[in-house]
Amino acid sequence: MQVYLNGRFSSRDDAAISINDRGFLFGDGIYEVIRIINGRLFRLDAHMRRMDRGLGVLEIPFTGQQRAELPAIMGKLIADNRLEKGEGTIYLQITRGAALPRTHAYPPDKTPPTVLVMASPFVPVKEILEKGGHAIMVPDIRWSRCDLKTINLLPNVMAAHEEKKRNAGGVLMVRDGFITEGYKNNVFAVIDGVLWTYPDSPYILSGITRDVVFEIAEQEGIAVRLCPVGEKQIFKADEVMLTGTITDIQPVVSIDGHRIGAGRPGPVTKRLQQGLRHRMDTE
Amino acid sequence: MQVYLNGRFSSRDDAAISINDRGFLFGDGIYEVIRIINGRLFRLDAHMRRMDRGLGVLEIPFTGQQRAELPAIMGKLIADNRLEKGEGTIYLQITRGAALPRTHAYPPDKTPPTVLVMASPFVPVKEILEKGGHAIMVPDIRWSRCDLKTINLLPNVMAAHEEKKRNAGGVLMVRDGFITEGYKNNVFAVIDGVLWTYPDSPYILSGITRDVVFEIAEQEGIAVRLCPVGEKQIFKADEVMLTGTITDIQPVVSIDGHRIGAGRPGPVTKRLQQGLRHRMDTE
Repeated sequence: MQVYLNGRFSSRDDAAISINDRGFLFGDGIYEVIRIINGRLFRLDAHMRRMDRGLGVLEIPFTGQQRAELPAIMGKLIADNRLEKGEGTIYLQITRGAALPRTHAYPPDKTPPTVLVMASPFVPVKEILEKGGHAIMVPDIRWSRCDLKTINLLPNVMAAHEEKKRNAGGVLMVRDGFITEGYKNNVFAVIDGVLWTYPDSPYILSGITRDVVFEIAEQEGIAVRLCPVGEKQIFKADEVMLTGTITDIQPVVSIDGHRIGAGRPGPVTKRLQQGLRHRMDTE
Repeated sequence: MQVYLNGRFSSRDDAAISINDRGFLFGDGIYEVIRIINGRLFRLDAHMRRMDRGLGVLEIPFTGQQRAELPAIMGKLIADNRLEKGEGTIYLQITRGAALPRTHAYPPDKTPPTVLVMASPFVPVKEILEKGGHAIMVPDIRWSRCDLKTINLLPNVMAAHEEKKRNAGGVLMVRDGFITEGYKNNVFAVIDGVLWTYPDSPYILSGITRDVVFEIAEQEGIAVRLCPVGEKQIFKADEVMLTGTITDIQPVVSIDGHRIGAGRPGPVTKRLQQGLRHRMDTE
């Protein structure tokens, strides 16, 4: 696989970063995962806007020129890795770069950020999208800037481990008694025909697919309520789903062994899935 | 500077890690900083016990054999970097290693962890230790497993940036109205002759120097109270100090512009500083 790292294209195995990189020492960086559909980048602009916001909040000095180069870099990786047909993902990570000595505070602005871009084939897991997954709830132990898509991902990693260990299909994180989101996706619940999800907040990441769901809901006449769903309340939901760039829209048919609705993907979930697939295939 | 990375000694500039390293992609690892005093490692065993605990909680498969090799690796780096005289620090970082594909859940146990060890000279900042620092308070935005010394350090990095930007000497983090700790040290307050500090909890890291302070306090007959200090209460403290492996015991003489006590390092702080210095020089 060909990757891009700091101005250079190389094979994935030849790309190496400095031990002084602040991504490695502090998790001091942000990332994006972008869906490739038949060579096109789905909702690239939205991903770039979210990236810009993260870089801005963290004051990572990524220049306008570097930003302008990204689409061409992604395009070359799509071509070099033969991803013009079918599905794939772009992984983009920008860290505050390598700086000495190791000290917490931001290094001088002239320190060049580290830029890594990778493109990989991706196969959606059809079975879970069609039949739904059996999810678990875990405490949301993350920091209070979950609105930033940073590489400080250890709590997410621990949640994913719990999912794997318990052979589950989906994780719902609970903070202060409310479902916030998954460890790599947002959570929606259908209650009496209304689509509920956690409002924009420092406690969730505003997903690109979440925004697509809002668009589809508006077009389809499905009412949306931006309101947190309680950890007990969710058991009574008619439908629950997870949404994300590589999650697509994944039905949740049980949570901690409690059946959700009829125990199979519901009609609102299916309409939203069709709307997403349509957009991914035609945009 | 010579460093150790995954079985190999090399110059710092030649040491490079894979872009697939989970330390770089997820901040999936732990670290320790150990003080070198005239070639000796101060409280090495305590650091190793804390490291073991972190690796255990995170289920990073670091073997007993790898652990047994660490003291010799540190010794060689101390010699190769001519740190047998004077002050220095060992930086030790262990991540969950490089694994493909990038996926949150822990990779198979056979994935070798990445082990990085560095040794650097270190010069304590005498002025702040003697005159004290002007600290600031910031919200503690970290996750709820601060008892683990992980490389998910972005909130600490942001706090350090705030300190630098505001030209402060010390940061006190506030969670739920109480001072938890600094971004790289613990906080103690002297109130009516009693030494207060945040109790062991998932909201603080149990510092090695914090434990040394407990020892000295016991020996010197200074009463200790393991109780959180309120964000308003601390302004009325007689003395406040920060403690840590590279902080030593740093007096705080003002917080957000409010003078603490007499506005200069107090008698309890000085006794503790002497006790720490004595132990560092003689153990």
